[in-house]
Amino acid sequence: MAGNSFGRLFRVMTWGESHGPALGAVIDGCPPGIALSEADIQKDLERRRPGKKLTTARKEPDRVRILSGVFQGLTTGTPISLLIENTDVRSRDYEALKDVYRPGHADRTYEQKYGVRDWRGGGRSSGRETVARVAAGAVARKFLAQEGIHVRAGTVALGSVRCEPTDWQEAMNNPVYCPNPEAAQAMEEQLKAAKASGDSIGGIVLVVASGCPAGLGEPVFDKLDARLASALMSIGAVKGVEIGTGFQAASMRGSLHNDPPTAHGYASNNAGGVLGGLSTGMDLVVKVAVKPIPSVAVPQKTVTRYGTETTVRIEGRHDVSAIPRIVPVCEAMVLLTLADFMLHPYPYRLHSHA
Amino acid sequence: MAGNSFGRLFRVMTWGESHGPALGAVIDGCPPGIALSEADIQKDLERRRPGKKLTTARKEPDRVRILSGVFQGLTTGTPISLLIENTDVRSRDYEALKDVYRPGHADRTYEQKYGVRDWRGGGRSSGRETVARVAAGAVARKFLAQEGIHVRAGTVALGSVRCEPTDWQEAMNNPVYCPNPEAAQAMEEQLKAAKASGDSIGGIVLVVASGCPAGLGEPVFDKLDARLASALMSIGAVKGVEIGTGFQAASMRGSLHNDPPTAHGYASNNAGGVLGGLSTGMDLVVKVAVKPIPSVAVPQKTVTRYGTETTVRIEGRHDVSAIPRIVPVCEAMVLLTLADFMLHPYPYRLHSHA
Amino acid sequence: MAGNSFGRLFRVMTWGESHGPALGAVIDGCPPGIALSEADIQKDLERRRPGKKLTTARKEPDRVRILSGVFQGLTTGTPISLLIENTDVRSRDYEALKDVYRPGHADRTYEQKYGVRDWRGGGRSSGRETVARVAAGAVARKFLAQEGIHVRAGTVALGSVRCEPTDWQEAMNNPVYCPNPEAAQAMEEQLKAAKASGDSIGGIVLVVASGCPAGLGEPVFDKLDARLASALMSIGAVKGVEIGTGFQAASMRGSLHNDPPTAHGYASNNAGGVLGGLSTGMDLVVKVAVKPIPSVAVPQKTVTRYGTETTVRIEGRHDVSAIPRIVPVCEAMVLLTLADFMLHPYPYRLHSHA
Amino acid sequence: MAGNSFGRLFRVMTWGESHGPALGAVIDGCPPGIALSEADIQKDLERRRPGKKLTTARKEPDRVRILSGVFQGLTTGTPISLLIENTDVRSRDYEALKDVYRPGHADRTYEQKYGVRDWRGGGRSSGRETVARVAAGAVARKFLAQEGIHVRAGTVALGSVRCEPTDWQEAMNNPVYCPNPEAAQAMEEQLKAAKASGDSIGGIVLVVASGCPAGLGEPVFDKLDARLASALMSIGAVKGVEIGTGFQAASMRGSLHNDPPTAHGYASNNAGGVLGGLSTGMDLVVKVAVKPIPSVAVPQKTVTRYGTETTVRIEGRHDVSAIPRIVPVCEAMVLLTLADFMLHPYPYRLHSHA
Repeated sequence: MAGNSFGRLFRVMTWGESHGPALGAVIDGCPPGIALSEADIQKDLERRRPGKKLTTARKEPDRVRILSGVFQGLTTGTPISLLIENTDVRSRDYEALKDVYRPGHADRTYEQKYGVRDWRGGGRSSGRETVARVAAGAVARKFLAQEGIHVRAGTVALGSVRCEPTDWQEAMNNPVYCPNPEAAQAMEEQLKAAKASGDSIGGIVLVVASGCPAGLGEPVFDKLDARLASALMSIGAVKGVEIGTGFQAASMRGSLHNDPPTAHGYASNNAGGVLGGLSTGMDLVVKVAVKPIPSVAVPQKTVTRYGTETTVRIEGRHDVSAIPRIVPVCEAMVLLTLADFMLHPYPYRLHSHA
Repeated sequence: MAGNSFGRLFRVMTWGESHGPALGAVIDGCPPGIALSEADIQKDLERRRPGKKLTTARKEPDRVRILSGVFQGLTTGTPISLLIENTDVRSRDYEALKDVYRPGHADRTYEQKYGVRDWRGGGRSSGRETVARVAAGAVARKFLAQEGIHVRAGTVALGSVRCEPTDWQEAMNNPVYCPNPEAAQAMEEQLKAAKASGDSIGGIVLVVASGCPAGLGEPVFDKLDARLASALMSIGAVKGVEIGTGFQAASMRGSLHNDPPTAHGYASNNAGGVLGGLSTGMDLVVKVAVKPIPSVAVPQKTVTRYGTETTVRIEGRHDVSAIPRIVPVCEAMVLLTLADFMLHPYPYRLHSHA
Repeated sequence: MAGNSFGRLFRVMTWGESHGPALGAVIDGCPPGIALSEADIQKDLERRRPGKKLTTARKEPDRVRILSGVFQGLTTGTPISLLIENTDVRSRDYEALKDVYRPGHADRTYEQKYGVRDWRGGGRSSGRETVARVAAGAVARKFLAQEGIHVRAGTVALGSVRCEPTDWQEAMNNPVYCPNPEAAQAMEEQLKAAKASGDSIGGIVLVVASGCPAGLGEPVFDKLDARLASALMSIGAVKGVEIGTGFQAASMRGSLHNDPPTAHGYASNNAGGVLGGLSTGMDLVVKVAVKPIPSVAVPQKTVTRYGTETTVRIEGRHDVSAIPRIVPVCEAMVLLTLADFMLHPYPYRLHSHA
Repeated sequence: MAGNSFGRLFRVMTWGESHGPALGAVIDGCPPGIALSEADIQKDLERRRPGKKLTTARKEPDRVRILSGVFQGLTTGTPISLLIENTDVRSRDYEALKDVYRPGHADRTYEQKYGVRDWRGGGRSSGRETVARVAAGAVARKFLAQEGIHVRAGTVALGSVRCEPTDWQEAMNNPVYCPNPEAAQAMEEQLKAAKASGDSIGGIVLVVASGCPAGLGEPVFDKLDARLASALMSIGAVKGVEIGTGFQAASMRGSLHNDPPTAHGYASNNAGGVLGGLSTGMDLVVKVAVKPIPSVAVPQKTVTRYGTETTVRIEGRHDVSAIPRIVPVCEAMVLLTLADFMLHPYPYRLHSHA
């Protein structure tokens, strides 16, 4: 109810603030018998890790510990508690801002909701919170791999550069996680330019899931696309979500948009892998709009908690874009969504009798 | 869990198929003491009612009955059961299609999930299901009006016509629910042309909610924007959802995107009324991409349940666009989302002590 | 959240007041492909039906209608809406009581919660509400029968008569649903005597479920016994729930209480079929304490809504005991609990791979 | 869904095994602005702490750490993560038992559910799990104290000794937590005798909550008594729950059982503080039957995982009764239940407008 849980059968609760002692996730409902080690999770954490020169200046090892739910290398079906300590916390950096509402941040809305303010780097509303999502997503990835489902994500727009994915292997290797080598280089230039100007930029992330059986999703309110939209829109910087053709569908004719069914699938995939809120068996294709991060070094108008007008420049260690660090977070949210639906009774029970 | 419930504290469960005896909704958690009559609900049902010449040929009065939860004209806090009988049901129209998968429909995915097929007009996956959403939304509207919250929606794109809203009053009067009189006329032409060609078109719906207090939403997974995205994406024809600047944000600079805080609000509203997943007190601004409806009269390739290739032309009574009937459905989903968050403890308890 | 839903994967929402136009239940999550007719449900409704001379004077046919979720005699996996109209409603009987709090009833607590009062026969808090539970339970029974699970209940105490079950077949035949022929007769005498004295009596219901696979239940808060306790305690007149030895366990030694494991089960069943909150594969054995119904013809002290002291005698058509009509309600609640757990992923997935 | 969460608006997820590195709880939905320190929680943990000579031999300091959700001594409204490390873990003690099913334990049912076995002291099914409940309950206690609600529990039966509470202050001081000084001494004798005989004993715990406003509980399935029953029955050793008169109600007459309403309450409290599933404003009175703990030193018949008959004697450090350590656990479960209902919209909203 309170919003820090995600999923129902593969349920994750996350906790922790950017400048508290630690962050973590507890996974309740992970199937038993899955091989799971801290190294499995660490691998995904590395991909969102701060410390890469292009994006962020905060350096943390982000070491995960598994505190429960695994015995002799296998999950036991009981809750898996994951802990990541905060090691490079300099709350003092934020003291100067404790009475100022940073533009584009949640400083004032949190205070309006709860009546208290944790001014240390955004507290719970910080992007740091996503480290727990990625850790939990890594566990989901292990379960889904067993079921033949794989999820990958990449940057398809950054600032003014846009591209189509041409080489997914490449997305693992370049610093902007772009599945298009030429575009990747142009994107790096965008990041440098933005940094130089003291400003920030946004972009678009593409997430693709392959290997999903047909029939995942729960009509009519928990449709697969509805839950994916929710999962991805719950990431701080996301302002839009598209499935398949997305907003382009608005200007298409039905005869063209419909994907012709074939004996074993569909002749095209405008639907993005979802019909009637249920997976079709084709690739799930989702796009996510990422806003420019609000912390910029250029001076901005704002007010204090007391309503006085002022000007603020956000100093300190900040990314110039949520991309690329948001890429593994998008993957994680899709992984968690699919892990949850894979545990729903249907279509599983239908096929397990066959 | 099973997906036919929406919301948590203002919870709605809907039921019914397009060609069964009736459809309905049960609302659990509506506050007591709200004046509610069948006429209140009927008004919203009229707005999505079939029978208007531009869009659909099925004629039904869609009379709602309140079967519980209201005593002497006031809600009692107990479940409100709403019933709408299906009166113009011609299942025979569909018998010819009972072994054919209609392109762009959920015929095959439902069968893959459940192992059975209700071939009468899509069954539960039919757009007819939304009549129950609109009925429930009308109840939410009464509650929210008491709290000073108002939700309106209109068509801002249809086929190749796009527009900005200029006159919301007008959106109530023209047959395409467009808040821009000139565009409305062009949109009507688009519908006629599509009908003449036997094809269908899509569009974009804009939803605006005003009067929301700041602090609605539940970090971090049940953020206001996350739940709105889910609510709207759960409508059959929707392929994309944007909050505020949406996909446009991807190519903006942070210094421009940030809305400068002022003493009592914000100098702009690029955020679309949400920061950190919590309402800011500014208008909520959401856009929804609607795909062209899949039932078209032009011949389409498909397969039968037995895998044989065939060609199908969808005869019968079909809209040429989900717009405008989807407009009140979008309103309903936003109303239901807000009603739910208004019952969460915070920020309510904070202010009720003040 | 709001409390009119039960279960998670086999979820039921009920609605309706004792003197409104109808009552009903919507079942979301019933497996597809189950043969289901109105007659299947009617059979269980007959068992709790008013009109039997020993207990109640209100006569209603209680005809159920299935409004959705069944096509060509089979469940489709979509919500099953069940409707039972109220046909013998005389609200006038209650007008004299509309400003008086009936002792032992929920008149004042509902008003304290919601600020409004539906004075027509208790409204939502009436025992009539359980008709919807029994209807939904009948659907669960069909699903569970397919899985080899059977639930039966009977009266093992009424007023001052107590007994052990000796003949379950008999429980279906005598008017007090007692699985012990001699005790049954004594119980009938108790009812007559209570009626003559204008007073009411309580009793104990025993529920037994056989055929459950081992491993049902979800540690640690949704243990099978925890959920059964909740399910049964949610019935209006119930004041206590015991699993297996229940309160007797408090005075036993561990060496005696422990059921010795054998190769295929246990040598005894003090546990009542649950260990560590999970089913053992032995019969589930649950006992329920039923209080004497509060509506009695003898004069009682009370107050009005305005705090004035007064005396009240409850006239009209009332049972002298919640037994036997509560017996099928107890069955229904156990059926619904088990149906829900049978759809949870484990142990199902474990065995479906075998 | 998976069963390690409790509550909806004041939601707790617990994790951890008896012999893993740590146990913990995450509280999602605790109101902001509550003063909370580790010492507040430690106080309750001391009451269930092992190391007291009468009951258990395992010595652990059970130090709690607050890892999130508190800033400058006040709760912030974000998740509160509590961690308790296991410091005195000797898994080796259990190696001899790893292929044997201990009678009365959940060894086999867990294996039947999940297909794997954590043989280290019961793993998740160990009574050690309740340390996390008590920690979370201590946070609920702080919130409820602010609202004027207080919960206390005591032992009213142990082995063959039964008593009525005469002095609640005393219950804090004697080693069996008995609110009756004479009975307390007799109970201590029972524990010693049981220990000497190598056997174990059960008992009854009484929980009383005072200061609850009228109207807590959610009809009809989440009634206050239903949720209390579930909360308490979810504790490992509990086999029965009674509200108010409980099983005694079964043999009472209605005219006697009904509590006469008075202007400001009720002239008696047979109901135990609940009518129609809603709190009446009188004390909540709940009794809980505790079975004798299954680990006994006397030899018992059982089987191995391979179905071979064998005899087992449970050596090692074991309590002879779940009492008194279960007493603060019972308190915790009632605290958590009430904290949850206090956050539900009604009756709160009704009174906050007044």
